[in-house]
Amino acid sequence: MRLSKTFIKTLREAPNDETAQNGALLTRAGYIHKEMAGVYDYLPLGLKVIENIKSIIREELNKLGCEEISMSALQNPEPWEKTGRFSDQEVDIWFKTELASGGKLGLAPTHEEPIVNMMKAYISSYKDLPLYAYQFQTKFRNELRAKSGILRGREFLMKDLYSFHTSEEDLDKFYTEVERAYERIFDRLGLGEDTFETFASGGIFAKYSHEFQTFLPVGEDMVYYNGDKSTVLNKEVLSDEVLGDLGVKREELTETTAAEVGNIFKLKFKYSEPLGLKFADENNEQKNVYMGCYGIGVSRVMGVIVEKYADKKGLVWPEAVAPFRYYLVGIGEAGVVKAEEIYNKNPELCILDDRDIRPGEKFADAELIGIPYRVVISERTLSESSAEVTNRRTGETKLIKIDDLISEI
Amino acid sequence: MRLSKTFIKTLREAPNDETAQNGALLTRAGYIHKEMAGVYDYLPLGLKVIENIKSIIREELNKLGCEEISMSALQNPEPWEKTGRFSDQEVDIWFKTELASGGKLGLAPTHEEPIVNMMKAYISSYKDLPLYAYQFQTKFRNELRAKSGILRGREFLMKDLYSFHTSEEDLDKFYTEVERAYERIFDRLGLGEDTFETFASGGIFAKYSHEFQTFLPVGEDMVYYNGDKSTVLNKEVLSDEVLGDLGVKREELTETTAAEVGNIFKLKFKYSEPLGLKFADENNEQKNVYMGCYGIGVSRVMGVIVEKYADKKGLVWPEAVAPFRYYLVGIGEAGVVKAEEIYNKNPELCILDDRDIRPGEKFADAELIGIPYRVVISERTLSESSAEVTNRRTGETKLIKIDDLISEI
Repeated sequence: MRLSKTFIKTLREAPNDETAQNGALLTRAGYIHKEMAGVYDYLPLGLKVIENIKSIIREELNKLGCEEISMSALQNPEPWEKTGRFSDQEVDIWFKTELASGGKLGLAPTHEEPIVNMMKAYISSYKDLPLYAYQFQTKFRNELRAKSGILRGREFLMKDLYSFHTSEEDLDKFYTEVERAYERIFDRLGLGEDTFETFASGGIFAKYSHEFQTFLPVGEDMVYYNGDKSTVLNKEVLSDEVLGDLGVKREELTETTAAEVGNIFKLKFKYSEPLGLKFADENNEQKNVYMGCYGIGVSRVMGVIVEKYADKKGLVWPEAVAPFRYYLVGIGEAGVVKAEEIYNKNPELCILDDRDIRPGEKFADAELIGIPYRVVISERTLSESSAEVTNRRTGETKLIKIDDLISEI
Repeated sequence: MRLSKTFIKTLREAPNDETAQNGALLTRAGYIHKEMAGVYDYLPLGLKVIENIKSIIREELNKLGCEEISMSALQNPEPWEKTGRFSDQEVDIWFKTELASGGKLGLAPTHEEPIVNMMKAYISSYKDLPLYAYQFQTKFRNELRAKSGILRGREFLMKDLYSFHTSEEDLDKFYTEVERAYERIFDRLGLGEDTFETFASGGIFAKYSHEFQTFLPVGEDMVYYNGDKSTVLNKEVLSDEVLGDLGVKREELTETTAAEVGNIFKLKFKYSEPLGLKFADENNEQKNVYMGCYGIGVSRVMGVIVEKYADKKGLVWPEAVAPFRYYLVGIGEAGVVKAEEIYNKNPELCILDDRDIRPGEKFADAELIGIPYRVVISERTLSESSAEVTNRRTGETKLIKIDDLISEI
């Protein structure tokens, strides 16, 4: 990306109404634009980060044999009425609308009911199971307040995976595979060391569900962890019974705030039963399908990465999600020519700051935008056939031979 | 894709309520699932076709220097009220909803107002122009009737590009570049020979806009064309004045139905003026920004391709948009082993029909699903070190050496 050609501009000041650090920095650095509280547009750099996060999740889920689909945002009330969840008392964050031809519709806050309803067309026998379908799709939640930037949106991007099984054992087995896949995903996203699988409330059909909580000062959840963080539980399940189950003592627990980046549920028959999703077993008996569901908040993950890594100078992206890997600045005639040459080797990997502004302003923007490696080429560095490469995260700077850099790019 | 592992099933019968050929075939072949009239889910094969169409459009737009973004579905009424378009009298296909915290919202039927509003943050000087931003985003239109499958959706995917300029000349120049890009796009999508740039009504600021109309029996538009199809006009502009403008005579025109797959508009100040999107020129005078907008109905294009190419046996995909290139069927033990071997060379390109059903059923599904090349490997073909390759479109069958096939894959 040539900065002279992109419409993105960095802003000196965060907008007044943007109180969350992630929203403020992402706006200042030109990644997002606020449409209204809790509703954001993704600009070219922001969209690239989202796509990078999606790619990592997609790769890990495809390895498990999951298939990608895309379901609608507009929701026919019928299946939701069967589970009682079209009611605003039951689900208090619905956005609803009306068909011109008559009848209410919902805007998907999640997709259990429609996918269970859909699967009635594809599941009839034990031979059709197990199956795993996921999507990256916009969810709509009518939050009363939305002041956390992209950590809590009224419109946000989620990955939701649903699994369908003939037996509890098969559900359990896949659930464990997803747990391991989630660990790999959060590791690859740069959140591994602060993200813990956390016991949370299980609802009707299971004693516990599991959340993946990233410890974070601005996180909205409160969790408790033991000394080696081998047991983490959500405040909502903190009781003597649960402490007994998990074999931890209240006095050895520490409290911290955390952001929920993923959750996994054993739904069992919760949705298949009221919606009539059954299969014929080997003896041709009709049985309820066992289900699990597994979410990751894609846009929230982006916000959590910002909150975890950002410093006073701006954003800091882990390489795996960064929109670009190198931020090229040429100084002086020879430096500009060489920066251009490096850029042309692989424009997909590089931002070229070819704007007609002072180097100091470019350095400040390089830090604000948070690209992993700033590469400065000047007559001084060229005298050593080198470029000065600065690691955004550590601040470490070293001279690297231009030829080595080019072969890396 | 291994058919034994995917949840997709082909259906013998189209659903009763699916009267459009594209909806019926895509449903039977397992590409889409109907959520309600005009609202569809995209299953793994359908999503791949959509992604292939998006890739072609993206490549051609990126060549013009366009930048990809993603704007929100939820719409703050404010900018729409400034242009008068939040009114249901003015725009009669709004879906509207309400914030829990109070206030109406719209669901984007298009994105002119929000992008103009957003660009006020990024355009202030002639130095910021021109700029071109596009997105692939769901649009919501509250149609009274929706009986055309994915040709006319209540929720559908659109590519919308917006251009911003300092002058009419610059807008005209870019508009011409987009016209050429659209021709390349429709050529690559397999619609080139039947798709014609068509004069349509221009609105307030331009005498004409242009539509890209694909001649199609089930198209909802009526267009007129002259002998060599060098001039095509929408019925809405058929008048003596227009005929004079275009230098064609009414009696030399033929009427046909067509589906609008794209449209391009010179908006000029239509939105920039009421929304106050201005730039400072070289003399520091404030001037209105010139604008153009350019749409392609992505999901509609998919439906048009189905309608154009499908035959009695099912779907027929042009190679560029097909979800897979080869449909592999192994017959007999050696055939199955060899089919598996070919599949493993590049699973991204192949469907392997490894289901435990008769070859005749596999052949029927291969035709229904419409993959460009059916590859059958049996003891007979192996005796000639070959596979039997059938072109779905022409029906032509030939023996191709396995080694040649593998190197192609």
